[in-house]
Amino acid sequence: MRALRLTDGVLQVADVPCPSAADEALVRVEYAGICATDAAILNGYANFSGTLGHEFVGVVETAPDAGWVGRRVVADINVGCGACCACAAGNARHCPRRTVLGIRDRDGAFAEFVTVPAANLYAVPESISPLAAVFTEPLAAACRILEQVAIPPGSLIGVLGDGKLGQLIAQVLRAHGLSVRLVGRHAGKLRIAEKLGLQVQTADALKTATHRFDVVVEATGRADGFADALRLVRPQGTVVLKTTGREAWPLPSAAVVVPEVTLIGSRCGNMAAALQLLAEQKVNPLVLIEAVYDLADGLRAVEHARRPGALKVLLRMASAAVSED
Amino acid sequence: MRALRLTDGVLQVADVPCPSAADEALVRVEYAGICATDAAILNGYANFSGTLGHEFVGVVETAPDAGWVGRRVVADINVGCGACCACAAGNARHCPRRTVLGIRDRDGAFAEFVTVPAANLYAVPESISPLAAVFTEPLAAACRILEQVAIPPGSLIGVLGDGKLGQLIAQVLRAHGLSVRLVGRHAGKLRIAEKLGLQVQTADALKTATHRFDVVVEATGRADGFADALRLVRPQGTVVLKTTGREAWPLPSAAVVVPEVTLIGSRCGNMAAALQLLAEQKVNPLVLIEAVYDLADGLRAVEHARRPGALKVLLRMASAAVSED
Repeated sequence: MRALRLTDGVLQVADVPCPSAADEALVRVEYAGICATDAAILNGYANFSGTLGHEFVGVVETAPDAGWVGRRVVADINVGCGACCACAAGNARHCPRRTVLGIRDRDGAFAEFVTVPAANLYAVPESISPLAAVFTEPLAAACRILEQVAIPPGSLIGVLGDGKLGQLIAQVLRAHGLSVRLVGRHAGKLRIAEKLGLQVQTADALKTATHRFDVVVEATGRADGFADALRLVRPQGTVVLKTTGREAWPLPSAAVVVPEVTLIGSRCGNMAAALQLLAEQKVNPLVLIEAVYDLADGLRAVEHARRPGALKVLLRMASAAVSED
Repeated sequence: MRALRLTDGVLQVADVPCPSAADEALVRVEYAGICATDAAILNGYANFSGTLGHEFVGVVETAPDAGWVGRRVVADINVGCGACCACAAGNARHCPRRTVLGIRDRDGAFAEFVTVPAANLYAVPESISPLAAVFTEPLAAACRILEQVAIPPGSLIGVLGDGKLGQLIAQVLRAHGLSVRLVGRHAGKLRIAEKLGLQVQTADALKTATHRFDVVVEATGRADGFADALRLVRPQGTVVLKTTGREAWPLPSAAVVVPEVTLIGSRCGNMAAALQLLAEQKVNPLVLIEAVYDLADGLRAVEHARRPGALKVLLRMASAAVSED
């Protein structure tokens, strides 16, 4: 089969044997999304080699439990060892020996087929299109914020970063009835959010702002975004860190200690919660799709996705049967 | 009266008029403690000018409510504006227009007299000696951690930094029945903690440690202490930042985001809670006193307090009537 693989730092579309794992499901991938983490991996993050890709939707080809066969699925990307305390507590996302699809010691979904433990699968309801379902993983990451931070009604939330993750986060928080402002630097991207009825603000306008947010979500992945987050959060407020930067960011400790700010790292979330938002059409990820490339054009797709300011670039596998129109 | 004042960046013992504020209590200071924040102010932190000092104990000389006169007191150091939302919520510590004794727009307690609003006063029970009571403010700062972080029984807490604040924090957390390890670099200081029955560990021994703490309290004030805190906290654990550094510390965002660590800034705490610990003799701050200087020798006292590794240096005012033996 074809797969977009990173080997010795070189990315290429390669012909490789179809994966197989007797105790896992084999999924025929339909679409996969290219994420900022993939770009980071190409820059050396996580020291990963193998098939990239952790955002995907596909159809189960084979599985230990035949009940899964033929079903459209998405998957939790963290695979725990099953034996440690974290796994025993149902917390495979923090298993110290976990593998992570396309990120850590496990081939990912930029391929025609991927294997995943059946326990990680989530069936995609008929009402959700494959193109929407491919956003389940980043939507789950957005939902994660609500599992971690108790946000009282009436709170004002600033989401910094008008890229694909920031936009999904703003949509998810708004879907939960929260008052959200998406802050960005790109007029075109802010317009996309505005069209969905989201409140937006330019980063420049905030330079002289005197109001503060109760919660700030940092989704720029940049040191200046982090500095903005500390500047814009109210005393005793919370800054949620959703993105990682390659270089360490400067942390002015007094800006955390004196106003007693909380910073909280936030990673993967609940896939079921994300699917529910999609099924109820409370979020609209399709507006974020900038381009769809065939897997054979994977290098061009990745090049496109790495352009500054690019929104979501998807890979389409041969099995994607559904019209995108 | 005499006061140890910082004027145009120059610290000196000066003769100044006795302060007066019709709506505040006038306190005759007995002892005052020199704190790392005072040293930071001398390095330019907070851009403060005036009489330094925020850790003190004294006797009320005059007050709008005569009931206070003659009583031994300590005081909450934050004075809110009384008119804003934070003050209305009883949260003067985060009033944006607050003054702070010896730190922000308000003369402090390295003087024979200091004025403080009566609302900030806490009577010191007879059973607490003045030399112990002078630790109420930093003990309250230690108590603050327990107001901010819900620490389940059985949690393992690492306190990084065997200086005066780290030692007080370790004592306070232990007094609340928590399992604490004090981590430091100074054999002599670790011995002080050990004599009180605290578990200690050298920072070097932790370099190769594989265990992690549920909660790490950063009390070194140094970038390498912060780096250690991130390395030693378990996934989904909490790092409490109690100290500020002059320079920004490097924050490797992946070390916060991937393990979903929480960082929380922690400042001033509840003086009543600290007094209760002292009254119940659940903490012993006296072991941390390294030297006591008369106010007239204030410059030498500050010089001593700024020596690397110095423990608590106190200033004794003329009115201190109690024997230190």
